[in-house]
Amino acid sequence: MTTAKRDTYTPETLLSVAVQVFIERGYDGTSMEHLSKAAGISKSSIYHHVTGKEELLRRAVSRALDELFGILGEEHACVGSAAERLEYVVRRMVEVLMAELPYVTLLLRVRGNTDTERWALERRREFDHRVADLLKAAAAEGDVRADVEVRLATRLVFGMINSIVEWYRPEGPDGRGGAREREVVDAVARLVFGGLRKAS
Amino acid sequence: MTTAKRDTYTPETLLSVAVQVFIERGYDGTSMEHLSKAAGISKSSIYHHVTGKEELLRRAVSRALDELFGILGEEHACVGSAAERLEYVVRRMVEVLMAELPYVTLLLRVRGNTDTERWALERRREFDHRVADLLKAAAAEGDVRADVEVRLATRLVFGMINSIVEWYRPEGPDGRGGAREREVVDAVARLVFGGLRKAS
Repeated sequence: MTTAKRDTYTPETLLSVAVQVFIERGYDGTSMEHLSKAAGISKSSIYHHVTGKEELLRRAVSRALDELFGILGEEHACVGSAAERLEYVVRRMVEVLMAELPYVTLLLRVRGNTDTERWALERRREFDHRVADLLKAAAAEGDVRADVEVRLATRLVFGMINSIVEWYRPEGPDGRGGAREREVVDAVARLVFGGLRKAS
Repeated sequence: MTTAKRDTYTPETLLSVAVQVFIERGYDGTSMEHLSKAAGISKSSIYHHVTGKEELLRRAVSRALDELFGILGEEHACVGSAAERLEYVVRRMVEVLMAELPYVTLLLRVRGNTDTERWALERRREFDHRVADLLKAAAAEGDVRADVEVRLATRLVFGMINSIVEWYRPEGPDGRGGAREREVVDAVARLVFGGLRKAS
């Protein structure tokens, strides 16, 4: 099995190993040596696939960013009232976070010491602004409370959603994972839009 | 000034320097050498104050934990309906987080490799359970929605509150900090209890 695994090493499997190591050791603390050991292949085999660890980071955070920006192009993110579009985007953000857990986790930990990290931070800010614009539009349409500043509300809502990476772990292939995921998506949507208080 | 600073080094100032270094380098990545350089005093001077870096970590996270547990003993956390007590605790948690920003930040980053870290994680869990109990009581009294599981709701609410350490920075002594702090406390209370949606 080990041999088979080595023979079938693809950029995709290398990427998923690299993301785990980046998350565990931090990107700065990860050397090609660490990646080589974790992947069980030589450094020169890694260089056969990529130019170095920065390319692996770029591919990993691109995957998360592409999924997140992809949401904004989906039909329900584009039609309907701003509040409806916002709720759709919030639900889909939680889904993407759970489906692409390691990639989103890495994206959220990026700090900005290299060009790739600065680029990723810039793209994250762009995404945040797009969601903040939706929130602003929903407030202008009168569907969202106006007594919390848009930027602050966006930060707090993103804070709640992003915190899911701290504790959510996908369940095994016993079919329960899907139910748990729907429960989390519904809980976030209920709390973000309706809050804890029972409607009286 | 530098000499004066060195002469007046106290366990308190040493602690605040150590917390900054722990946050920047991670606790595992911090050596006594790093602490000595950052504090501008010799390692033996540090050993005059504490037995080592683990004692500094323990003092730092104790400060955050004492403030957080202190909330639960305050009058408004003990009298009134569970929902009122919960709202008081949520508001005070945000205040403590902002007032003790570096100490709470460090507490939230603790991972659990040493006895002190495991102890801190255990105490954090205890605090989370105390707040979850309040939420459960508020749901039982019919003031909090029952369609989000208590443990999940607690995690999401803590996620929103704790995310404040990622972006909140206290403002200068120009008097504006206080206003900003009240704005953040009010925003969290509004979103946690009422959500984004405008009451119709």
